Amino acid sequence: MNDFIFYNPCKVYFGKSQLKHLPEELLHYGKMVLLVYGGGSIKKNGLYEAVTRLMMENGFPWVELAGVQANPRHTVINKGTAICREKGVEVILAVGGGSVIDSAKGIAATAVSEYSDVWELVKVSASVEKALPIIVLLTSAATGSEMNTWSMVSNVETNEKKCLGGPGLLPKVAFENPEASFSLSKYQTACGGFDILNHVLDNYYFAGDSTFEITLELQEAVMRTAAKFTPIAVENPNNYEARANLMWASSLALSNILGDMHHGACHAIAHELSAYYDITHGHSLAIITPRWLQYIMDEKTAPAISRLGKKVFGLDVELDPIVGAQKSIEAVNQFCFQILRLQSTLTELGISDESFEEMAHHACASFPNLTIPGLRSLTPQDVKSIYKMCL
Amino acid sequence: MNDFIFYNPCKVYFGKSQLKHLPEELLHYGKMVLLVYGGGSIKKNGLYEAVTRLMMENGFPWVELAGVQANPRHTVINKGTAICREKGVEVILAVGGGSVIDSAKGIAATAVSEYSDVWELVKVSASVEKALPIIVLLTSAATGSEMNTWSMVSNVETNEKKCLGGPGLLPKVAFENPEASFSLSKYQTACGGFDILNHVLDNYYFAGDSTFEITLELQEAVMRTAAKFTPIAVENPNNYEARANLMWASSLALSNILGDMHHGACHAIAHELSAYYDITHGHSLAIITPRWLQYIMDEKTAPAISRLGKKVFGLDVELDPIVGAQKSIEAVNQFCFQILRLQSTLTELGISDESFEEMAHHACASFPNLTIPGLRSLTPQDVKSIYKMCL
Repeated sequence: MNDFIFYNPCKVYFGKSQLKHLPEELLHYGKMVLLVYGGGSIKKNGLYEAVTRLMMENGFPWVELAGVQANPRHTVINKGTAICREKGVEVILAVGGGSVIDSAKGIAATAVSEYSDVWELVKVSASVEKALPIIVLLTSAATGSEMNTWSMVSNVETNEKKCLGGPGLLPKVAFENPEASFSLSKYQTACGGFDILNHVLDNYYFAGDSTFEITLELQEAVMRTAAKFTPIAVENPNNYEARANLMWASSLALSNILGDMHHGACHAIAHELSAYYDITHGHSLAIITPRWLQYIMDEKTAPAISRLGKKVFGLDVELDPIVGAQKSIEAVNQFCFQILRLQSTLTELGISDESFEEMAHHACASFPNLTIPGLRSLTPQDVKSIYKMCL
Repeated sequence: MNDFIFYNPCKVYFGKSQLKHLPEELLHYGKMVLLVYGGGSIKKNGLYEAVTRLMMENGFPWVELAGVQANPRHTVINKGTAICREKGVEVILAVGGGSVIDSAKGIAATAVSEYSDVWELVKVSASVEKALPIIVLLTSAATGSEMNTWSMVSNVETNEKKCLGGPGLLPKVAFENPEASFSLSKYQTACGGFDILNHVLDNYYFAGDSTFEITLELQEAVMRTAAKFTPIAVENPNNYEARANLMWASSLALSNILGDMHHGACHAIAHELSAYYDITHGHSLAIITPRWLQYIMDEKTAPAISRLGKKVFGLDVELDPIVGAQKSIEAVNQFCFQILRLQSTLTELGISDESFEEMAHHACASFPNLTIPGLRSLTPQDVKSIYKMCL
């Protein structure tokens, strides 16, 4: 059992009637606001109007960066950084899901750095200690970026998707109204739900350092919640209870409340699919995860995989861990491809094996000795084999 | 499902090798330290020497308040307050368990108030917004005071034990080394473990506002951990894994990570036993809890009580919630009096019914309409009946 430091000073206003607290929270951090958002969905569901009205009525001037897409581009972040410097932005208000929040984080870090290009900052790969303060209005349950210190940045010129992290990137405040996620499509809901589940799974028992029973218990509680409520939200988009459970699960899943979380094997492998083919992150995770489990399954990992099936998917206890592990993998398969009805192969998404070699190398590039750590560690050759299993 | 605000900016250093970070953390808050501790146990186990050496080597002057007892007295707190004012204390270092931390909180709040007597502050019953910063070195897994905004104060002159609470009372930093709890007696360990379990149980389903599935899941995870590891730590005091699980469970149990926690029915009823008879808090909880469950059991509460047995004590699913609830209560009884081997009646502790009327009134005094809220609310008459069941 490893020593750890727990620190999570993000304030969350959760529920239907919390937005009224936005002006008082903004005021703690500054007056000049950069409002970051994605496509037009927040204009359709009234959130844009509610937020801008509150800022207007309470005397907050703001500038906007709209049009943030999935897998946030470094070029968009650079645009936001330039706006911050030109307009003297003091606080960033991110209204959206993971991509919008991650973009806000990239901007927040770059704006107070010596760089004008976030990619320079990514390449330095130092911990981000300082950044502009970020306040989040969450509209999607998925990445957990609203309550953690991580962000992803995509460079579409070089097919790279990399991580920027550090305590400065933890949002100061997150507003989480589950109703704001009612308008997500069935596909987005399914992908987001699996992203939540995988954040925990990627840091579970298999990660090799999770032997703290209470943390495993908490991780299982969050995975069970994601597994239970994702199908309900897919079927009934306006089910408040399901949306609320998923939203809070999203925030908990990659926060250090569930242990010393980091991007694990599946995330490393899946990010390359988004970097090369711009496919939805949660979907690539759903395709990778059951193959990865199958690939790493051996006598050492079987007890952990078997426990996953028992605790998260409610399978009966199996005396033989190999049999239990095999049933667990079947349960994950069934969850992704029958219950959530996601397409199950890369081939169906139009992806062939042409870049697997390069992608596998990229996936391992940020780990010591080009090896993804875990109970069963993975070399580029292993990762390539896993990609092939997904065809 | 109610809206909620989540905010828990306490930094926890957990594990064997964290004490070296004490000087840097102290330095964030000041130089002049008040060191608060209890009996001599920290002198026996070397903690006192380690802490004072670190302060000496790093140039922190300090004054001491020693001899804090269980059920912390307002007179001791007043003594600490006077020291703070006289010596210009900037930061309070509490080395001990719940009583030491609660005393430190009373001192921290009173020292920056207009009062010299903490009981005046208690009587005002306002939320404590400001206090001297508190750093904790935890030696006992029980009250959760190390990571929450509450403290208890006992007035032995008036037989009153009351609550002081507010965001100012959250410790800034907590050092949690499970080894520091190795020297706890079997009795203290059993009482502490049940205190942890009851903090969650008192805010579980029965509290009437816990319908958020993910929170119930997290609560059950922590209760399971307490139920699993308390007997192990009682039998093997030096079992690091058991002590570690209990220590982190203690911190989580009454923090708002598990929901909008407050003192519930059992705590309100049990605190009077400590106020009148100075008995160990966790033991009074163990005596009260199964009787309280029996008393509130009806068609409305049975599903919640039945779920407790299934999820926390691993009972088989019962189709009839009344049968399931009855089995759950038996499991709680068995846990307290057979597994933890605590004495099961007030009579055995030398307590008769002479003050039950007055105690029952006190227990309800701080609730609107003299009624403890919950799925099954309780009047003073109900509380008196529960006390009688404990004879």
